[in-house]
Amino acid sequence: MSRPTPKIVKATATPILISDPPLLNVLGVHQPYTPRCIVELETDSGATGVGETYGDTDYLTVANALASAVVGRPLTALNGLRELAHESADLSTDTVQEFDPAGLRGSRTNEKRLRSVVSAFEVASLDALGKTLGLPVHALLGGKVRDRVEYSGYLFYRWAEHPTDDAPRDDWGAALDPDGVVRQAQRFSDDYGFSSFKLKGGVFEPEQEIAAIAALGKAFPGRPLRLDPNGGWSISTSLRVAEELGELLEYLEDPTTGINGMAEVRARTGHLLATNMCVTTFAEIPEAFAKDAVQVVLSDHHYWGGLQATRDLAAICRAYGVALSMHSNTHLGVSLAAMTHVASVVENLEYACDSHRPWQTEDVITRPHTFVDGALDVPDDPGLGVELDRDAVAALHDRWIRLGVRDRDDVAAMRKADPTWTQPSLPRW
Amino acid sequence: MSRPTPKIVKATATPILISDPPLLNVLGVHQPYTPRCIVELETDSGATGVGETYGDTDYLTVANALASAVVGRPLTALNGLRELAHESADLSTDTVQEFDPAGLRGSRTNEKRLRSVVSAFEVASLDALGKTLGLPVHALLGGKVRDRVEYSGYLFYRWAEHPTDDAPRDDWGAALDPDGVVRQAQRFSDDYGFSSFKLKGGVFEPEQEIAAIAALGKAFPGRPLRLDPNGGWSISTSLRVAEELGELLEYLEDPTTGINGMAEVRARTGHLLATNMCVTTFAEIPEAFAKDAVQVVLSDHHYWGGLQATRDLAAICRAYGVALSMHSNTHLGVSLAAMTHVASVVENLEYACDSHRPWQTEDVITRPHTFVDGALDVPDDPGLGVELDRDAVAALHDRWIRLGVRDRDDVAAMRKADPTWTQPSLPRW
Repeated sequence: MSRPTPKIVKATATPILISDPPLLNVLGVHQPYTPRCIVELETDSGATGVGETYGDTDYLTVANALASAVVGRPLTALNGLRELAHESADLSTDTVQEFDPAGLRGSRTNEKRLRSVVSAFEVASLDALGKTLGLPVHALLGGKVRDRVEYSGYLFYRWAEHPTDDAPRDDWGAALDPDGVVRQAQRFSDDYGFSSFKLKGGVFEPEQEIAAIAALGKAFPGRPLRLDPNGGWSISTSLRVAEELGELLEYLEDPTTGINGMAEVRARTGHLLATNMCVTTFAEIPEAFAKDAVQVVLSDHHYWGGLQATRDLAAICRAYGVALSMHSNTHLGVSLAAMTHVASVVENLEYACDSHRPWQTEDVITRPHTFVDGALDVPDDPGLGVELDRDAVAALHDRWIRLGVRDRDDVAAMRKADPTWTQPSLPRW
Repeated sequence: MSRPTPKIVKATATPILISDPPLLNVLGVHQPYTPRCIVELETDSGATGVGETYGDTDYLTVANALASAVVGRPLTALNGLRELAHESADLSTDTVQEFDPAGLRGSRTNEKRLRSVVSAFEVASLDALGKTLGLPVHALLGGKVRDRVEYSGYLFYRWAEHPTDDAPRDDWGAALDPDGVVRQAQRFSDDYGFSSFKLKGGVFEPEQEIAAIAALGKAFPGRPLRLDPNGGWSISTSLRVAEELGELLEYLEDPTTGINGMAEVRARTGHLLATNMCVTTFAEIPEAFAKDAVQVVLSDHHYWGGLQATRDLAAICRAYGVALSMHSNTHLGVSLAAMTHVASVVENLEYACDSHRPWQTEDVITRPHTFVDGALDVPDDPGLGVELDRDAVAALHDRWIRLGVRDRDDVAAMRKADPTWTQPSLPRW
């Protein structure tokens, strides 16, 4: 049975603003609204596909260029997308920001921008291809090896509300001490059944965060715990925290910045170190693995350039005996579906995945996911198994137009509450 | 458009014997007939798919077990095939042969047997899936990044004919000295347009093989040349050959055995070393790359466990700055199609691929491939783009039954000509 390979006839990259709670991190606080980009593809047979990625200005520029460039190409031409993005985007200068204010993902480079945008187009292509063929995305990636994907409850220090009047509200209340963190974890456990927890740290003095993890350990004995200060600690502080928390932690995430710092912490503590900062590109892998700087790489299909690239990363980790978990930044249901599909096909994804999703009260799909027992079933419906809610996209795009927020900037958001706040230089402690 | 995922309803592993010329190598000579295994799958929608792999007894045992085990499974469940093969095959003991007499692929282990068999089932699955969906295999692997795949002319020292009466004949004549090698290369160039050549060495004293490469360099100035003695040389011999041939060689393939030996040759010559012996599994990669033992890995989808696994290998090589070429053992058109598809999707496959195919006068596909300008066009027909010739398979299977040859054994074949011949211990020189 032969038929022409489906071709892309239309591609759009739509910036949206989604509401975000006042979640605290080493740089500052999440803004009331954060930009995302929704990529939609349409094929000559009328199938559509959707992907999601960062919506900040410099990602959007690449996304718009790639949206023009993919029109007319075969839907199956995934391997050439990175090159096409490179050719179509105007990236004559590589403006490296040493520390990405929008994602705590280490430095921000052209390569990272390209790959993050490519990921959304690859996911949208796989979604459309799956719908065209009647196959779920996981089947296009060699087939799922598990039927459900476990997620971890992603705990944040947070204020009860943003310090600005026009900001969205929620009913989670503040979490600014160990009791608040435990209360938050209890609700995560009650509502979604998460059985492991990650606390975003780097917000308070290490002693306070150690106390929070200890309180979690007491409240939820035996449940895996993680702490992630986003490189906020010096090596000596990292050593101290690792020693104090010891076996309570499943792994310690980015205690300090840089391959050498991580390697020293590892060598002197023997603790499992995870990262989504010091290894976020293929180029960083050889040195980091050679120095044993990381034992768990937090994959992220946005970072690495798509679902196939995530498989590539997994293959490297498998060969080198480095474990794999999954990172999350603020995202909606389209990315959560993509995360679930790729997590289902990677045999060596041994840890529960992170997801910010519970913090997002909005979505752009008609039937938002619900975590049950801390997990999501891997969808067997064609494509990603989600249906785009175009009214929701239109409304959130309208908000993007109206509010004029163009970039995520956790430092600026913190300045609204504390006018003296400047971007912290790391290590903070 | 939803439809049930195709399921496998029938799977067969058919051993065949194919005629093979008296090609010489470090161990001895190819037998008149060598076993291959043709894997056929049939789905509940009536689609069929074909794969090809080694047909020696211990591969066949695994293949038969896997053929039973895949029935009833989704056609798309590729990622679980290795595990399924492991479960279904009786591999309670790992009989490691230090040196594989049937393929010059380093040691023979259970893992290698498993992966070689899995590769044929994965290829057959992709073929059937492609035919079901109306897509070429390359489109199921993320899409081709090139429209044609270049192959290298694979030169062998050889006798004019096998020393046994009942053996197949051909009209290539002997090639046992530099003139003979150049004549062979000329015919390869004239008939198929190959613009690079690889000489299988390790057959004669190194001086003679150096002379053959020098003669090729003179006859075909500027064309890339390779020499592969299959680990037949000591380190000091390797150093001497590397020095004498210098820039004539595109790369030197497995001059000596083992990671440490290869690393020493590399360190002392700076020459590019390729391998299909010291790195043939993922487990061997970290040490070999850390020691800079190989600069070009010869991928082989049979070795590594399929087309997806070849992509995995390519990803690792890309991240570590190690180049990729492609190895070939005696094979027919089914494997050549699979090689061409996977070579078309791997961006960093920078060298012309090896293929024994011109030496095989038989095939199991209705329209055997023809190299044009040393290359094959990447097929855009559904699946592999080949049609199985079931009459040919039946005839070659009948030969397998009649002749009773069950295993490739180049040492035993040489003994037919030289009763005193025993398996050479390496290094020979």
